[in-house]
Amino acid sequence: MIIPKSHPRYVSLKTREQLVRGNRSGIVVPEGLIAHGRGEAFDYILGEKTGQSARNAITAAAALLLTARRPVISVNGNTAALVPGELVRLAQAVGGDVEVNLFHRGSDREKRIARTLRRFGASRVLGVGKDASSRVPRLASMRRQIDPSGIGDADVVLVPLEDGDRASALHRMGKKVIAVDLNPLSRTSRSANVTIVDNITRALPLLNREVRRLRRYDRKRLSRIVGSFNNEKNIVLAVKEITRYLDKWNGT
Amino acid sequence: MIIPKSHPRYVSLKTREQLVRGNRSGIVVPEGLIAHGRGEAFDYILGEKTGQSARNAITAAAALLLTARRPVISVNGNTAALVPGELVRLAQAVGGDVEVNLFHRGSDREKRIARTLRRFGASRVLGVGKDASSRVPRLASMRRQIDPSGIGDADVVLVPLEDGDRASALHRMGKKVIAVDLNPLSRTSRSANVTIVDNITRALPLLNREVRRLRRYDRKRLSRIVGSFNNEKNIVLAVKEITRYLDKWNGT
Repeated sequence: MIIPKSHPRYVSLKTREQLVRGNRSGIVVPEGLIAHGRGEAFDYILGEKTGQSARNAITAAAALLLTARRPVISVNGNTAALVPGELVRLAQAVGGDVEVNLFHRGSDREKRIARTLRRFGASRVLGVGKDASSRVPRLASMRRQIDPSGIGDADVVLVPLEDGDRASALHRMGKKVIAVDLNPLSRTSRSANVTIVDNITRALPLLNREVRRLRRYDRKRLSRIVGSFNNEKNIVLAVKEITRYLDKWNGT
Repeated sequence: MIIPKSHPRYVSLKTREQLVRGNRSGIVVPEGLIAHGRGEAFDYILGEKTGQSARNAITAAAALLLTARRPVISVNGNTAALVPGELVRLAQAVGGDVEVNLFHRGSDREKRIARTLRRFGASRVLGVGKDASSRVPRLASMRRQIDPSGIGDADVVLVPLEDGDRASALHRMGKKVIAVDLNPLSRTSRSANVTIVDNITRALPLLNREVRRLRRYDRKRLSRIVGSFNNEKNIVLAVKEITRYLDKWNGT
């Protein structure tokens, strides 16, 4: 190996600062900072760019959201700190809602996140306080609490930066799950119907653009896009993108 | 790819809790939590175990520390939260000292870290407050402040969980640098003389054991171990260990 002169650096310093600010303002918990770091590392070995695998998944996700009867966008602390505007815009574009869902619940934190989403244009925010009165069966964490009129009623749920247990539990409830997860091997990635292996700060703007593009398509054409998408194959492609990037460094 | 039934999980939950506790007690900064997350992800794609590359580097590091005139162990918030006892034990075993060196300096934090090290048996802790009166040339961050009787005078410095700029700056000062870094591609990893690509919670106990084993060797034999170690080749081996692990998942 010739150690390259151009040292790779984490280009996502701005994003990192957003998270630290979110931590100070009480939106992001310490565990959320650690989770963000995991994402940074996976992004690093993806070359910090949106690859073909992510582009395929974004198209399938846009089609799935547009054909949904009741799409809901699940929001946690990290996503609220990173892409609040994009989440609200997406919910509006697909005729759905945003719902607060936290691993570490706390009524102050919920309200702070809801306030952020409203500031970015959400007319209503589901899942706050007593509104989260339903439960996801067989799920131990606080993430089991869901809004009966939101995720409870949804047929398609977008769960960006999710934990694996809830993604599988939602899947078991018969809901179609779209995940955004930089770790292609995670349980979330592998239990979702559509897994976008990409940094949420790059993926969400692209997803919003793709929704606007596909909105002109008729239902049949959208269903064909969803039907022809193979998530397992697409995850393999993401893993290949990582090994290809690493191979550049070890000179094979 | 057949998606495997045995889902990989982060086994390092205990370590994660240690960091969050360190954050609450003021030893670990938010940026340290994010950095830990990056480490978790790299550990995950290493299969969360100490590979051959790390074992080679641990042997070379032990020999280098034992042949040093003035070895110093640099300690930051994360390492103090994770392996305080192992750091103190290592300094004692090689006749060296521990020195506090922080990216985000703050006199309260320095003192808290020094107190932790003393509680784990350190008779003296360098680099606290006014003791850090020297500077590493051409380094912008607070990490440039070093103790003239510690890192300033050292010929060998162990810098676990370091930032890339300081690792190269110490190297430019003519010091031999031993790094512990889970990212084999980082600038720290590539500018160190000996890079241990491993989780610090596994590597430090192994390094302490290796120092006890090699202590019986004479100087000539130790120098031969150091001389025959090739860090570049060994980093390539670490990258190969990662791609081998990923290949298991994508079925190639």
